[in-house]
Amino acid sequence: MPMLEPLPQRVVVYEVGPRDGLQNERTHLRVDQKLELIRALAVTGLKRIEVTSFVSPRWIPQLADADELARQLPKAPGVAFSALVPNEKGLERAREAGMKSVAVFLSSSQTHSQKNIHKSLEEALGGYRSVCAEARRLGMRVRGYVSTVWGCPYEGPVSVERSLFAAASLIEMGCEQVSLGDTIGVGTPRQTEQSLGAMLKRIPAPQLAQHMHDTRGTALANVLVGLQMGLTTFDAAVGGLGGCPYAPGAAGNLATEDLVYMLEGMGIETGVDMQRLVAAGKLAQRLIGRELPGKFLRAALAADGAGPLT
Amino acid sequence: MPMLEPLPQRVVVYEVGPRDGLQNERTHLRVDQKLELIRALAVTGLKRIEVTSFVSPRWIPQLADADELARQLPKAPGVAFSALVPNEKGLERAREAGMKSVAVFLSSSQTHSQKNIHKSLEEALGGYRSVCAEARRLGMRVRGYVSTVWGCPYEGPVSVERSLFAAASLIEMGCEQVSLGDTIGVGTPRQTEQSLGAMLKRIPAPQLAQHMHDTRGTALANVLVGLQMGLTTFDAAVGGLGGCPYAPGAAGNLATEDLVYMLEGMGIETGVDMQRLVAAGKLAQRLIGRELPGKFLRAALAADGAGPLT
Repeated sequence: MPMLEPLPQRVVVYEVGPRDGLQNERTHLRVDQKLELIRALAVTGLKRIEVTSFVSPRWIPQLADADELARQLPKAPGVAFSALVPNEKGLERAREAGMKSVAVFLSSSQTHSQKNIHKSLEEALGGYRSVCAEARRLGMRVRGYVSTVWGCPYEGPVSVERSLFAAASLIEMGCEQVSLGDTIGVGTPRQTEQSLGAMLKRIPAPQLAQHMHDTRGTALANVLVGLQMGLTTFDAAVGGLGGCPYAPGAAGNLATEDLVYMLEGMGIETGVDMQRLVAAGKLAQRLIGRELPGKFLRAALAADGAGPLT
Repeated sequence: MPMLEPLPQRVVVYEVGPRDGLQNERTHLRVDQKLELIRALAVTGLKRIEVTSFVSPRWIPQLADADELARQLPKAPGVAFSALVPNEKGLERAREAGMKSVAVFLSSSQTHSQKNIHKSLEEALGGYRSVCAEARRLGMRVRGYVSTVWGCPYEGPVSVERSLFAAASLIEMGCEQVSLGDTIGVGTPRQTEQSLGAMLKRIPAPQLAQHMHDTRGTALANVLVGLQMGLTTFDAAVGGLGGCPYAPGAAGNLATEDLVYMLEGMGIETGVDMQRLVAAGKLAQRLIGRELPGKFLRAALAADGAGPLT
């Protein structure tokens, strides 16, 4: 099989459901409900779980309980929990709550950056320099997110150069990995090849992650391109939790089950137990109280009463 | 971009919604409703539309109106309508109703074949020999379908050799193209590469089509593999109409909008007007009266009231 070779033998599935999923759900979960979901995810074999964001509660009311949640995180050997921090104050809150892994985030699109974090890309990068330095001094792991790499809800196409500038700056200031986001789920495979190709000229594959939204159904096709180009970390949210903030009713995050199903079906090791993952997906759906869009989850739920399909 | 080159410059999107979609919907449409949907599809730029099946009404009550429907098909220059025929009687009905393009169908899995058409693969092939000969004598185009190529709901994995035997036999008896079906939507990219690789050793790419179901979200990733291997025809159903007969509630057919979005986003010409296709999808959803699973359609419906997302 020369075409799909060489592919990575194993990949890291980076679960973002409790953060990127829940922050876009209308239903606000209580801390004990979030912890129940995080515990269910922590026993699946997932090694990275992003649990919350230390932004101002005014920005994201769904995650206003970040401090309380972080203090009660379960002991989960082999699982690294992480949280977003928007600035030094957020970092301080994260440290006080016991987080050992944090992430900073910005948008390569100027308009999205202004609307989302009220700063230009350059201002955001300026602020994160000290956040990253301080986090590293504290012995924390730091991840970076670059949003709107495949397109912006306000500007449309975003130049690869801007995304590359953002990603390379984050790496240079100490992020161990930068996750490239298709925030509105517009990406298609040729574009993915071009964007990742440009990134890979300056940033090694292990330092890049793909964070694809499935708003138009193309997330896994784009992941396949990433795999063929050597990427080994892919973000996803259990059940496809989250939806699209720009189009309520549309799908958002790639569903973790769909990602794991494809990877394991290709013989690529994820370390994730699908039965436990589906159990976490069912829990997420029950807690949120709406049908989640993840296709594998739907098939699994349907098969519960259907017989031959497994 | 060496990895995704060469890709076909244009592909045929083979619409199967009125047949493979409607035959699996609980809501039975009236003839005038089906014709409304077919008319909406016929103005999108789709060149091939499968409209019904001339099987016994006892088998598929949803399509019991095949004769009446076929007689009232719209005049649509450049669009070829087709219908399934299970045997010579079905072919005769199709001919009398004015169809110029028909298709025969079988399963490479023995159990699925018995349950679906009450014949073994060998018996089915035996019966189709005369059907294909007669159809060709009548100047009709004939297509073949092989189901369960990626897996069977009863047997699990199906050997590539059986699928290849079925496909090659159909080509040999006069089918202009054989559509390979992932009937239960279990396929993943490496398997797709293996199956298509085996097929392509004996059958030229233009004579093969991929008919992927999106039950586990992998349909477009599998299509991407097919594109990379040179296939140029892909089946899909408007809105993802249909569902999975083995798991009610799960997704079935790949949604035509998702397929067209990915292809056009890659610069591959489909000839399909997305706005008109979405209009047909909205109509399908309204007629069927349930939310269809196609992701692009959902995003489009959501964006109707959402603003920035286009």
